[in-house]
Amino acid sequence: MIHEFPVRVYYEDTDMGGIVYYANYLRFIERARSDWVRSLGIDQNAMRGEDGVVFVVRRVEADYLLPAKFDDELMVKTAVKAVTGVRLIMTQDVVRGDAFLFQAEVTVVCVGIGGAPARLPANIRRQIH
Amino acid sequence: MIHEFPVRVYYEDTDMGGIVYYANYLRFIERARSDWVRSLGIDQNAMRGEDGVVFVVRRVEADYLLPAKFDDELMVKTAVKAVTGVRLIMTQDVVRGDAFLFQAEVTVVCVGIGGAPARLPANIRRQIH
Amino acid sequence: MIHEFPVRVYYEDTDMGGIVYYANYLRFIERARSDWVRSLGIDQNAMRGEDGVVFVVRRVEADYLLPAKFDDELMVKTAVKAVTGVRLIMTQDVVRGDAFLFQAEVTVVCVGIGGAPARLPANIRRQIH
Amino acid sequence: MIHEFPVRVYYEDTDMGGIVYYANYLRFIERARSDWVRSLGIDQNAMRGEDGVVFVVRRVEADYLLPAKFDDELMVKTAVKAVTGVRLIMTQDVVRGDAFLFQAEVTVVCVGIGGAPARLPANIRRQIH
Repeated sequence: MIHEFPVRVYYEDTDMGGIVYYANYLRFIERARSDWVRSLGIDQNAMRGEDGVVFVVRRVEADYLLPAKFDDELMVKTAVKAVTGVRLIMTQDVVRGDAFLFQAEVTVVCVGIGGAPARLPANIRRQIH
Repeated sequence: MIHEFPVRVYYEDTDMGGIVYYANYLRFIERARSDWVRSLGIDQNAMRGEDGVVFVVRRVEADYLLPAKFDDELMVKTAVKAVTGVRLIMTQDVVRGDAFLFQAEVTVVCVGIGGAPARLPANIRRQIH
Repeated sequence: MIHEFPVRVYYEDTDMGGIVYYANYLRFIERARSDWVRSLGIDQNAMRGEDGVVFVVRRVEADYLLPAKFDDELMVKTAVKAVTGVRLIMTQDVVRGDAFLFQAEVTVVCVGIGGAPARLPANIRRQIH
Repeated sequence: MIHEFPVRVYYEDTDMGGIVYYANYLRFIERARSDWVRSLGIDQNAMRGEDGVVFVVRRVEADYLLPAKFDDELMVKTAVKAVTGVRLIMTQDVVRGDAFLFQAEVTVVCVGIGGAPARLPANIRRQIH
């Protein structure tokens, strides 16, 4: 199952090269992950406030294929590649129509207070079973 | 007394207009305020962790006079304009050599847990007496 | 006439105080201005590519009234306060339901290559006549 | 040879988790690359203005090992791993004292107007011969 999340490119996202600054794709795909998590019924504010648990990115592999420009309407496509009790691996592509601009594989974990590893929420662990 | 803080312009700061994106001057002047506060012996981590108190900006008046470009070496000049027990008003100019690029007047307060107003640290209240 | 533009708060927008970082409201209201300009049929890419003209912010007066938090659904309300041939003054409020979080008055001009002043697009100059 | 570049963590870099937001490490290491390029006598403004050539990131592999916090003094350590005529591969670590917080391998190319590949500047091609 692929989660789709639209992103419009604004001035803030561009750099003097006239294209989207490379770090900003990580902002785009994080918005998509938060939207996906929300769609699973998970409230990150409650996770953090009540359980002291937050999502943390452990690893990103990212390929920049084609540039995005101001005013572009992009789509972030997120799919779960693997889930264990404590680790979630996703693929996250940014496309403009049929063109692949950016492709990433992102590993996320949960950590509690003080940075100790915590189990992923059950709603996520169930995603690919 | 004027506090001086150097800022170099990087790719991340520019937009497709080839100049520094307007919101980023607020980042520059916040770095300068944090540096000034640190120079007064105030540890914002301790303020927040032990006292639950953080600085919050209440008002900004900003004039954009000339654009800054990639690789520019800028200077942020910060001066205290007024201090009361709970309110600090500063002027913060961004210059490049003799040229004024940006001028702001910034009002800062302290708030405690839940957003209640708190007294400014004594080191700051002493600044202009 | 008031232009409305929704903004969701993501991780990238927050700071360690647990609220939206003060500079990021300027990003939010710039998205709203770009959306408003697009709704008037103005293509900023074409303006820049064909005419060498870009919008530039000259002045911002901003009041921070209440904090926004992660996952908040905000609305940016933009209204034209005054237009001359070369200068556009807008009010831009950020609200969450009935609560006013942020209020700004923003002055925008157009500049051509080398920074020379240019006339605002006709579609904008017509807005309040 | 290892290029060292200091980075201080400011409010703008943190998120509501109280640590540096994951995308911001890409900003930190880009500052270090720009500083390294400048130290080789390469003027990116001239490259872009006269030759129409800019550096573009093609691939990033990044591991997030330990979190950085507000006010931390970090060091970005950049080393060239491989250079061909058109491709530069670097390792970029972010450390705090002896602790490794972030490790990346970054592939950079040069592109000309319209995105066509261009040769890397000679000063860079000479780096590991």
